Amino acid sequence: MGNSFGTQFRVHTWGESHGGAVGCVIDGCPAGIEFDLDVVQRQLNRRRPGQSALVSQRKETDTVEVLSGFENGRTLGTPLCLVVANRDARPEAYEATRGLYRPSHADYTWQAKFGVQASSGGGRASARETVGRVAAGAVAQQLLRQRAGVEVVAWVEQVHDLVLPLDRVDLDTVSEALVDAGPTRCPDPSLAEQFESRIQAVRQAGDTVGGAVRCVVRGVPVGWGEPVFDKLQATLAHGCMSLPASRGFEIGSGFGAMQMKGSEHNDPFEPDPEGGVRTRTNHSGGIQGGISNGELIVLRVAFKPVSTIFLEQDTVNTEGAAVRFTPKGRHDPCVLPRAVPMVEAMVALALADAYLCQQAQAR
Amino acid sequence: MGNSFGTQFRVHTWGESHGGAVGCVIDGCPAGIEFDLDVVQRQLNRRRPGQSALVSQRKETDTVEVLSGFENGRTLGTPLCLVVANRDARPEAYEATRGLYRPSHADYTWQAKFGVQASSGGGRASARETVGRVAAGAVAQQLLRQRAGVEVVAWVEQVHDLVLPLDRVDLDTVSEALVDAGPTRCPDPSLAEQFESRIQAVRQAGDTVGGAVRCVVRGVPVGWGEPVFDKLQATLAHGCMSLPASRGFEIGSGFGAMQMKGSEHNDPFEPDPEGGVRTRTNHSGGIQGGISNGELIVLRVAFKPVSTIFLEQDTVNTEGAAVRFTPKGRHDPCVLPRAVPMVEAMVALALADAYLCQQAQAR
Amino acid sequence: MGNSFGTQFRVHTWGESHGGAVGCVIDGCPAGIEFDLDVVQRQLNRRRPGQSALVSQRKETDTVEVLSGFENGRTLGTPLCLVVANRDARPEAYEATRGLYRPSHADYTWQAKFGVQASSGGGRASARETVGRVAAGAVAQQLLRQRAGVEVVAWVEQVHDLVLPLDRVDLDTVSEALVDAGPTRCPDPSLAEQFESRIQAVRQAGDTVGGAVRCVVRGVPVGWGEPVFDKLQATLAHGCMSLPASRGFEIGSGFGAMQMKGSEHNDPFEPDPEGGVRTRTNHSGGIQGGISNGELIVLRVAFKPVSTIFLEQDTVNTEGAAVRFTPKGRHDPCVLPRAVPMVEAMVALALADAYLCQQAQAR
Amino acid sequence: MGNSFGTQFRVHTWGESHGGAVGCVIDGCPAGIEFDLDVVQRQLNRRRPGQSALVSQRKETDTVEVLSGFENGRTLGTPLCLVVANRDARPEAYEATRGLYRPSHADYTWQAKFGVQASSGGGRASARETVGRVAAGAVAQQLLRQRAGVEVVAWVEQVHDLVLPLDRVDLDTVSEALVDAGPTRCPDPSLAEQFESRIQAVRQAGDTVGGAVRCVVRGVPVGWGEPVFDKLQATLAHGCMSLPASRGFEIGSGFGAMQMKGSEHNDPFEPDPEGGVRTRTNHSGGIQGGISNGELIVLRVAFKPVSTIFLEQDTVNTEGAAVRFTPKGRHDPCVLPRAVPMVEAMVALALADAYLCQQAQAR
Repeated sequence: MGNSFGTQFRVHTWGESHGGAVGCVIDGCPAGIEFDLDVVQRQLNRRRPGQSALVSQRKETDTVEVLSGFENGRTLGTPLCLVVANRDARPEAYEATRGLYRPSHADYTWQAKFGVQASSGGGRASARETVGRVAAGAVAQQLLRQRAGVEVVAWVEQVHDLVLPLDRVDLDTVSEALVDAGPTRCPDPSLAEQFESRIQAVRQAGDTVGGAVRCVVRGVPVGWGEPVFDKLQATLAHGCMSLPASRGFEIGSGFGAMQMKGSEHNDPFEPDPEGGVRTRTNHSGGIQGGISNGELIVLRVAFKPVSTIFLEQDTVNTEGAAVRFTPKGRHDPCVLPRAVPMVEAMVALALADAYLCQQAQAR
Repeated sequence: MGNSFGTQFRVHTWGESHGGAVGCVIDGCPAGIEFDLDVVQRQLNRRRPGQSALVSQRKETDTVEVLSGFENGRTLGTPLCLVVANRDARPEAYEATRGLYRPSHADYTWQAKFGVQASSGGGRASARETVGRVAAGAVAQQLLRQRAGVEVVAWVEQVHDLVLPLDRVDLDTVSEALVDAGPTRCPDPSLAEQFESRIQAVRQAGDTVGGAVRCVVRGVPVGWGEPVFDKLQATLAHGCMSLPASRGFEIGSGFGAMQMKGSEHNDPFEPDPEGGVRTRTNHSGGIQGGISNGELIVLRVAFKPVSTIFLEQDTVNTEGAAVRFTPKGRHDPCVLPRAVPMVEAMVALALADAYLCQQAQAR
Repeated sequence: MGNSFGTQFRVHTWGESHGGAVGCVIDGCPAGIEFDLDVVQRQLNRRRPGQSALVSQRKETDTVEVLSGFENGRTLGTPLCLVVANRDARPEAYEATRGLYRPSHADYTWQAKFGVQASSGGGRASARETVGRVAAGAVAQQLLRQRAGVEVVAWVEQVHDLVLPLDRVDLDTVSEALVDAGPTRCPDPSLAEQFESRIQAVRQAGDTVGGAVRCVVRGVPVGWGEPVFDKLQATLAHGCMSLPASRGFEIGSGFGAMQMKGSEHNDPFEPDPEGGVRTRTNHSGGIQGGISNGELIVLRVAFKPVSTIFLEQDTVNTEGAAVRFTPKGRHDPCVLPRAVPMVEAMVALALADAYLCQQAQAR
Repeated sequence: MGNSFGTQFRVHTWGESHGGAVGCVIDGCPAGIEFDLDVVQRQLNRRRPGQSALVSQRKETDTVEVLSGFENGRTLGTPLCLVVANRDARPEAYEATRGLYRPSHADYTWQAKFGVQASSGGGRASARETVGRVAAGAVAQQLLRQRAGVEVVAWVEQVHDLVLPLDRVDLDTVSEALVDAGPTRCPDPSLAEQFESRIQAVRQAGDTVGGAVRCVVRGVPVGWGEPVFDKLQATLAHGCMSLPASRGFEIGSGFGAMQMKGSEHNDPFEPDPEGGVRTRTNHSGGIQGGISNGELIVLRVAFKPVSTIFLEQDTVNTEGAAVRFTPKGRHDPCVLPRAVPMVEAMVALALADAYLCQQAQAR
C-alpha cells in the first residue's frame, strides 16, 4: 500500500530499480488535455542520472512510452499508463554491499517490513522510483498550465552552508531556462558556481552533502485546498516529504515565522487595482487557512546528504554482526540538482488534485 | 471534502466554532480496546482556551461525550462518535471584524472558496475545529499504548527566539507530567520561565509570537510506514501541517541536515546487545526509507505568531475598500502551549493508521 | 471500517440502536445548497417503526438535529453532522434472546468478527443504523433536485408472490404522494390492498415475508458514472446491496435480460425532436457502458423476509449447544414499506457522488 | 476516475482495446506470496476471444508479462504491474460503425461524457478492459488460496431460457476442470450440450443471447466483510455489476427470497461436530449481517445478450440523424463462457480486500 497520491487527480507508481520497468498510472486526468510527451521526457531528463559531471553516472536514457489514455496528442479521460524501461541495471555494482545493511539506507527497514527485498538495486527504495512521479508530475504541470495558467518552478537554493537568498531571485520571472543554465540548477550564476565547487570538493573527498530546493508557483487562483485535513500546505507537505532524502518542509515564512511577532508576520490586505484583493507581503506563502489566496505559493524542501559515501563505515550484516565496509559504484555527491524536477512533480500533483477537488464542489 | 484523515484508522471531524457542537467520528478503531474517556478529556483540557493566564480566556469546559462505538469501557469495533458541545460562543465579540477580511486569517479565502461563511466565530477555520482531532488523537494514543507500547510526548521547544536545546531534554523519560509542570508546556524550568516572560511581554504589547513544538515517540517497532507516497514522515507531515498556524515540519535532523556531510549524517548500525539492530546516532529521526527503524521518532513543527493582534492594521472590507481596524476579544498571545496536544494528536493518528496498515499486510 | 459511502459526496454513518444516538456526517456537500430539514424529517418518518399497523411498533420519534455545516437554511460547504437520539430502546425486550444466536441474524457473525457486541438491541446490525443513511440520502436528494433537476421515487413492487407489473405504473409521473397513499407504499390501489392483506395474514401467523422495491430516477443527464469499476450500476448496486435484508439488485431488464436475444434487448437510438438522442426502448435502464444515457434510471432491489419470526426455532447458544427458542418483541412482518425510503437514500447517495465526480472532470 | 477497486488489496486497471497494451497495477498484495504466472495466464486464456467456436474469433494470444513487484516466484510487497500487449487490433473492422452510435453500446454515453473517444475498438468500453481485472483476480485467487485456503469456482448456469438447476451441481466439489470440460463452461454435460446448440443456433441467426453465471466460494472463514456500507455482498455486487453486460446480482436465495416466508428462509444454526457453529440450510449464501458466516458463499450474476448483432438495426449517427446499419466483424454470440473467469476475478478481488481489511482489525 501507499503507492498512490491524490484523490481526484490520482497517480499510482510502480517499479523496482532493477526490474523490467518503472512507471505510473494516472487516473482522473480530464479528457481533452493536449499534452506534449516531450515535456514529460524533458522532466525525466532533468531527473535522470548521468546528465552532468555533478551527478551519478548511471547511463539511463529513460525514454518514456505512453501505453494508454492518450491518442492524437490528447488525453482520452481514461487512465494514462506511462512506462520507462530499465536499461542500465548493473547488479554487480551492488555485490559489495550484499548481505549488510548500509547506514541510513532503507535496507534494514524494508527487510524488516517485507521479509524480502529486490535482489539488487534497492528496489522501490531506490531513487529510481521517482521516475513515475516525475512523469506524472509533468502531465499535471501541463493540465495546470492549460486549464488554469499555473506555472511551477523550482531551483536549488542551498548546498551545504551556501545559501541563495530568496530576495536575489525574481519570483515573478524565474524560469526553468534560468534554473537550467548550469548543472547545479541554481538561477544565480554566482551561487551556482559556489555550489558547483562545493559539490566537486565533497565528491573528491568521497563524501556527500545536503541542501534545499525552493519552489514557487505562479497563477494559482484563490480557492484551492480542502480544510481541515487536506489544507493545501498539508498535501504539498505530504507530497514533498515522500521524496527520497527529504527531511523538512516549510510554506511561506516557514521556520522563520517562529521568530516573528504577529505584527511583523501578518500580511495586510489591500485592494488590487485590477479588481479583487491582494496582500502587501506574502509571509503566508500564498495559502491562508489552508486555501490558496491568489498570491505566489512559495515553499522549501530540505534534503539530507546522500547516504552512499565512499568512506569506510561501521554497520552490521544481515546476521546482525558488526562489520566495516566501503561502498563502491555510481552515486550522487549531492541530490539537489536532480531533486528540482522531483519537487516540481510533487507540487504539481498536489495542485492538480486540489484543482479538480475544487471544481467538483464548484457552484 | 478534506475532513478525513487516515486510511485504516480513519477520523472524520466536523463542527463550526459557533455551531451546536464540534466532534469526530473514528472508523477503523479495532474492537476491544479499553479506552479511558478521562484521558480524552484530559487532552481536551490541555487544548482548551482559558486554562492559564497565557492563553485565550474563552471559558469552554469542552466536556466530551461518546455517542457510539463504546460500551462498558471498551470499543465495539464500530464507529466512535465523540461530541463536545459549544457553550461559550459569543457572537458579539466578532462584531468589530464583521464585514472585513482580517489579515492572515482565513476570512478571505473561505469566502472566496465557499461563497458563504459561518455568520460568526470563524466556523471551521477557527482553532476550535481541533477539538475533534484532539479527541480522536487521544483514542489513537490509547490504541497505540495498549497494542504496541507506543508513547507520544510533545512539548514547547521554542518561543520567539528562545530555544530549548534538544540535548537538554532526556528523550527516554520526558513525560506529560514534566511538560505540564508549567503553563508554557516546556519541560525545562529555566526555559519555561523565559518563555512565560516573553509571552506575557508580547501580550501586554497587544502582539503575538510564534515558536516550535518538538515531539518524540517511543516504542514504535521497526516496519511502520507505507512507501512510496505514504512514507511515515510524509503522513506525519500531512497531519502536522494541517494544524492551524503550522508553517513547517521536519523529521530527525530536518533542516539541519542541509549543512551536514554524509559522513556526519549517516547513522551507523550496530548490534543491539538485546538482539536485533540499533543505530548509534539518530539523525534519521527513527525513520529510514519511509519506514520506522525502531529508534525514537523525533520531529518538530513550526508555528507562526497568532494572526489576531490588538494593534491597528490595514486591510480591506468585503466590498474591497481599504480600511483600518483594531481587533478586540479573547485570543492567545502564543498558540504554542495549546499546540502541544494538537501535535500529539496528529502524530498519534498518523501512527495508529500506519500500525493498522502494517497489520493488514502482516505475514 | 466500511462505514463510509461515496468518494466526493461522502457519507459516514455511526451509532448503535441502543446507544446514545445514531447519525451521519456528510463531507463534500457543496456550499450554498438550500436544504429543508423538514424533507429530511419526512424521509426519517417514512423509515421509522410504528408509522402504521403494518410495521414494527417501536415508538421512536426520530427527530433529526443538525449539529454542523448548516446555517440560515443553507449548507456551508463544511461537514454536515445529523443526529437522531435513541429514545425507545427497551433492552428488556432482548432478554429472551440473550446468550443465543438468532437464526439468519448477525449475532453470530458480529460476535465472531469483533469478539464483542452491543449488550442489547443489535448494535450496528440493527436496521436502526439506516437512520444515518436515510438522513444523508434526503440531503443528497435535495442537492440533486436543485442542481440537476433529478427526482428519485421508489415503491413496493412485490410482497411475497404478489407483483405489481411495471407497466401498470406511469414512470414519468409516479410520485411520493401516490406511493404514500396507503401504508404498503404501493402506488396501485388494488395491489396495495392485496399487499396489506397478505402482510396482515403473515403477521397473524407469527411469520414474515419478503418482496421487492422498484426505484425510478428522472432527470439524470447523460454522462454520470465512472467506468470501469465505478460504473453507475455498480455503485448503485453497492449502495442497495448494503441495505439490511437486501438479497438482489438489478438494473433495467435485469435478470429478465437472460431470456432475451440481442435483437429484442437492444435499445434503438432515435433523434429526439427536442434535440439530442433518445432510445426507443429502455432495457438498459438508463445506463449504457456504466454511464447514464439520459433515459429513466430503473432498478429493483430484492429483500428477504425479516428474520425475527414469532415461531419456535432451532439454534445454538453462545456456548455452542443446540437450543430451541421463540422470539418476543416488536418487529416488522414485512420490511418492504420501510425499505422504500432506504432504497431512495442509497440511490440518491450514489447519484450525488456521480454528479460531483463528473463535475470534477468537466471540461 | 473509477479505475480502481478495493481498499487494502487495491487494483488499478488501464488500457484501451486498440492502444499499446492493457494491464493492471496491484497495490497491497502482501510480500512473500508465491504466485504462479501460469495461473494468471490460464485465466487470461479462459477470458480471451478465439478460444472456441462459440466465442469471438479475435486472435489475441494475450501473453501476460510482470513488470514489477515480483521476483524469484514471490511477491515483493510492492506494486505488481501486469501487462498484456494488444496484437490483434483490426481498426478496419470498425469502419462500418464509425460515425454512428451502436445501439446498447457505450459509444453515445462515452462520447457525451468525455467529448472524445478512442479512434477505434471501443477503448475502455471494450470487453478487452477485463484483461486487467482477470489478471489481478488470478493474483487475488492465489493469495486467498495460500493464506486462507479459499477457492473460487464459477460456471455458466443459464443460457437464454435453459437453466442448470443449482441442486444438480455438487458445490463442495465442482471444479475448474469440470467446468472447462466443454466450451460452454457448464459443469453438467447434458445442459452443456443444450447450451452449445442454443448458442450455435443464435449465432447462425446473426443474433446473440444472455444468461447467468453462478459462483461458489469455499473456505472463507467467519468474519470477513465490513458493515455497514462494505458488507461482503455489497462489495461483491459492486465488483460483479461493474463487469461489461452484467444486469443483475444476487446473493444466496436472491430474488427467490421475495417469495419465501421467514419460517422457510431462516437458516437454523446447529453445533458443528468438529467444533463451532454451522447453519442447516444456506439461504443466506454464506453471508449474514454483511459478514461471512463460514458457509459456502453462493452468488449469481445476470448478463444481457451481447449488443453486437449481425442484423439490420435503427440508430442515429453522430450528427443525430436516423440511420439503418448492419454490423460486421468478430463478436461473441454469447458472452457467458468468457464471463466465467471475469466473475471469478471480481469475486476474488472483493474477497482478498475483505481478508486484508479483517486482518488490519485483527485482535
